[in-house]
Amino acid sequence: PDPEIRRKALRHWNNLTKPLGSLGRLEETAIRLAGITGEVVPDLSRKAVLVMCGDHGVAEEGVSAYPQEVTGLMIDNFARGGAAINVLARRFGAELVVVDVGSKAKKLPPSVIDRRVRPGTANMTAGPAMTREEALQALDVGIDRVEELVRGGVRMIAIGEMGIGNTTAGTAIAAVFTGRPVEVLTGRGTGIDDRAVLRKREAIRRAIEVNRPDPADPIGVLAKVGGLEIAGMAGAVLGAAAAGIPVVLDGMISTAAALAAARLLPEASEYLFASHLSAEPAHRFMLEELGLRPLIDAEMRLGEGTGAVLCFPLIDGALSLAREMATFADLGLAGPAEERAQHESDS
Amino acid sequence: PDPEIRRKALRHWNNLTKPLGSLGRLEETAIRLAGITGEVVPDLSRKAVLVMCGDHGVAEEGVSAYPQEVTGLMIDNFARGGAAINVLARRFGAELVVVDVGSKAKKLPPSVIDRRVRPGTANMTAGPAMTREEALQALDVGIDRVEELVRGGVRMIAIGEMGIGNTTAGTAIAAVFTGRPVEVLTGRGTGIDDRAVLRKREAIRRAIEVNRPDPADPIGVLAKVGGLEIAGMAGAVLGAAAAGIPVVLDGMISTAAALAAARLLPEASEYLFASHLSAEPAHRFMLEELGLRPLIDAEMRLGEGTGAVLCFPLIDGALSLAREMATFADLGLAGPAEERAQHESDS
Repeated sequence: PDPEIRRKALRHWNNLTKPLGSLGRLEETAIRLAGITGEVVPDLSRKAVLVMCGDHGVAEEGVSAYPQEVTGLMIDNFARGGAAINVLARRFGAELVVVDVGSKAKKLPPSVIDRRVRPGTANMTAGPAMTREEALQALDVGIDRVEELVRGGVRMIAIGEMGIGNTTAGTAIAAVFTGRPVEVLTGRGTGIDDRAVLRKREAIRRAIEVNRPDPADPIGVLAKVGGLEIAGMAGAVLGAAAAGIPVVLDGMISTAAALAAARLLPEASEYLFASHLSAEPAHRFMLEELGLRPLIDAEMRLGEGTGAVLCFPLIDGALSLAREMATFADLGLAGPAEERAQHESDS
Repeated sequence: PDPEIRRKALRHWNNLTKPLGSLGRLEETAIRLAGITGEVVPDLSRKAVLVMCGDHGVAEEGVSAYPQEVTGLMIDNFARGGAAINVLARRFGAELVVVDVGSKAKKLPPSVIDRRVRPGTANMTAGPAMTREEALQALDVGIDRVEELVRGGVRMIAIGEMGIGNTTAGTAIAAVFTGRPVEVLTGRGTGIDDRAVLRKREAIRRAIEVNRPDPADPIGVLAKVGGLEIAGMAGAVLGAAAAGIPVVLDGMISTAAALAAARLLPEASEYLFASHLSAEPAHRFMLEELGLRPLIDAEMRLGEGTGAVLCFPLIDGALSLAREMATFADLGLAGPAEERAQHESDS
């Protein structure tokens, strides 16, 4: 990101007909986007949501409200256009790209990109979810896909996921990177009851005890207690940072992926935007680690990139304001120049 | 609102291909809208934002960062299409209706509806802001305008305001209805410094001491420490409740108006939706009084209905999901019937 363009964007916002800073984090978002794109008022109308899919061996511990087959059924649903993310992507003008990084689905619909590294992870309570080599392959899937999208003209991406059992993996990653207790971080995922929450906590604890993931080795963390779609999303973040485009995170699991990516490549965090605050307790702590604050607070916990794409119109709205609002000069006013000077020196 | 339609809407949402309740407060919002409109999946594409304007005698106490003339300049800006609310209303498909309920503007642009009750309120630190009769006239302005809009086919409204000095009045109303201390409630409004915050608190305290507004007499509260545009917005809420259409609130000041309306007519609160949580401290406490939780949290403090209209795409998105998502039956699945039954009995 270019600090000079960011300063220019701040000056632009301060000349618009409103009290200084009164559009709050909408302004901040637009100013960060200016720095990333190198344009004071960027055009981000070409955007995509990347939904990464994978199955989880840990599902056999009874940690989800749904059987593992649902991953494949939802992949079919994405292809048929009936899932929540299809509706929101259509509504808010985002291209939907579904990539299978490792589901156990028997047969994939033609519109789904088949980059399966392996048919689901191993049960991480008994050993690593995948090998280090497999984690690197999954990262590559995300890197490649973003490269491809950027080549096709996409200027902003959202990331999301589908994979029965993946809040268990996401929470394990959160525990490793934030150091917070598993009891505090573990939520109800797709909607499990109290007994299943206990099983889930126990599975996460065992996975960490058995695998001893080292937070200083993010690829090791992804391999030991992660997931194929999670590593794929982490790769997408790395790819976006390399290409210099913004990435809008979804909920807890995509944020776990982004946190792993930011630990690998700290500059990547400059390209990250939080969308919503999930109902999953681990989400908040990982957003804090990343220094991000979401714009939406709706207790969503669906995944698929739904919260991220729901944030697109807010971002679009912020950029429209930057593009179309009148300036103080248009109204024949000087604007609050002294305050403006002070505001700039603060930031 | 019709509880039977609400139950039908809940059943509809529970059959969509997602974990039960996983769209959080988007679902709740859509289900409440079903109850209000009597349609399981309402069509609310015809919507409007009503911006009420008025001047405040208390501005002479030095409580704002801007001179009083800015109210009139911003009315011109609305007419020219250059204000933030113009941009967002265009972007998100809302009709913009600007009503002057009592500014001191010399000349109004023809597109602004002139319903001036008086040229600004009196300084409330020395006596009532207006007479009871004037407050009733201002309420009528809002009631009439919503009636008109509904007659024209509008099915959902947002309310917002413009008026230099009106966070001082809004905070005074908040103090009266919530009983919280003025120090806790008073914020920086358009962006005042510490000394002006002290003047603002003192003005609010004096206004309450001099006028002794009685929270059991909401019209008296509006007359004594309110504003013409605030009473106008309270009238709009009453009009919307009478017509049975949803009202999306904006920030602190529109919420003060809605709280007054809900104290006059408790059923009105069933038609209210919070949009965003403002940076103004009084907002949170009034939303709690009303039992509302906003979907957006962006530290906005602009007013004009900007936060409310920014929430429209989220509401539209929720209704699109209800309309277009596949059901479990579409995928050949039964859906989580037991949990569903439990969920219904909880609500």
